[in-house]
Amino acid sequence: MALIGILGGMGPLATVDFMERVIELTSSAGAVRDQQHLPLLVVHLPHIPDRSAAMLGDGESPLPALLHGIDILNRNEVELVVIPCNSAHHWYDELHAKSRAPIIHIAEASVEALPPGARRVAVLATGGTLHSGLYQRILAARGFEPVEPDAATQRHVDACINDVKAGKIGASTEHLARALDWLARQGAQVAVLGCTELPLAAQQMGAPPIPTIDSTLELARATVSYALSHGWNRPV
Amino acid sequence: MALIGILGGMGPLATVDFMERVIELTSSAGAVRDQQHLPLLVVHLPHIPDRSAAMLGDGESPLPALLHGIDILNRNEVELVVIPCNSAHHWYDELHAKSRAPIIHIAEASVEALPPGARRVAVLATGGTLHSGLYQRILAARGFEPVEPDAATQRHVDACINDVKAGKIGASTEHLARALDWLARQGAQVAVLGCTELPLAAQQMGAPPIPTIDSTLELARATVSYALSHGWNRPV
Repeated sequence: MALIGILGGMGPLATVDFMERVIELTSSAGAVRDQQHLPLLVVHLPHIPDRSAAMLGDGESPLPALLHGIDILNRNEVELVVIPCNSAHHWYDELHAKSRAPIIHIAEASVEALPPGARRVAVLATGGTLHSGLYQRILAARGFEPVEPDAATQRHVDACINDVKAGKIGASTEHLARALDWLARQGAQVAVLGCTELPLAAQQMGAPPIPTIDSTLELARATVSYALSHGWNRPV
Repeated sequence: MALIGILGGMGPLATVDFMERVIELTSSAGAVRDQQHLPLLVVHLPHIPDRSAAMLGDGESPLPALLHGIDILNRNEVELVVIPCNSAHHWYDELHAKSRAPIIHIAEASVEALPPGARRVAVLATGGTLHSGLYQRILAARGFEPVEPDAATQRHVDACINDVKAGKIGASTEHLARALDWLARQGAQVAVLGCTELPLAAQQMGAPPIPTIDSTLELARATVSYALSHGWNRPV
């Protein structure tokens, strides 16, 4: 039996949201009984040090704790690894080097989902991810033009993320709406929700001013597509 | 770092619902940052053979697959085990004997939550769990009088459970409402939702005719209470 390894807990609700998308996509692909769903091993480690703070030079590195999570997944012989946290992908190369199984890259999967006609793409992410240039590099390499929040708008993005992490989804939506409005006014044609807390706010928000790409959903789509193509929904 | 082991996937959405309750209860207890949440290891094995069918003599035993899940949790040195599936608790003694960590019993936790004034308690569960007498024994031992669905009502309970497993939550609620109405007419004063799919239907249903005890929530409460009393929300 092939296990999909999820290195999660960053944050806790985002991991649950990711699992729910995987289950819904598997149902949409025809699963009607438990036994037609995908086996998962979820290493849910919320104690991993704050990724954004570390990228901004303001906190300890999460890399040892992330590698410990990969160790657990290696020991349990998972055959695919996914990490429903965009910020953690700043350390993708180190995690990839240590993992025995392939790791689907959440930012690659998200940029892959952009409509081909789009050119100016807003990046909503933690301050650390934005500072790291993770999304900007992938977007530029594919011919898109990244649109970054200014400092005031980034404060709304950060507040949205922190509200979701604190379980205050209701309060989070206003911050996301204000950030998207500002980015749309800068000419962004589409926005990447490049932090897995943001889709939880977006689900409770009214219609956004521009289309959004949901990084949690795109990672789930890539995961289910990979797993179903390998027949992991069928017990051996 | 203490890990809480979850033997899940029975069914997939019920495990996600359970995790969400654990996170919400931890937030309610004061967690506002990722690092204040509880570390989990979720062994999510939807391929485990159907528990209800086995109890009704109509399918292979899930016990070897359940014990395999306990093996994985043992190897990863979890310090507590929870199983968000009532039917799996038919094999509680065998799982308990094999597990290195204590296993919280979902039916004990649920019956513990009954209001002391109640006497006649409806049992909503899979056909197999009902046939096994799991809840009836625990209720009778504590002085409650179990009220069981008749065959037509049990068909509604089964249909509700199967709809949730198939991802058709909307369709599931009507079946739950009809079952609860019949049980209330038999004089049940409170109903135990003794299958972890049923609370997913109840969340989308209107007000029930009698109060309900949600086995997923009661297992989550017992889990968070145990974990916080051991300080597992604080990184070492």
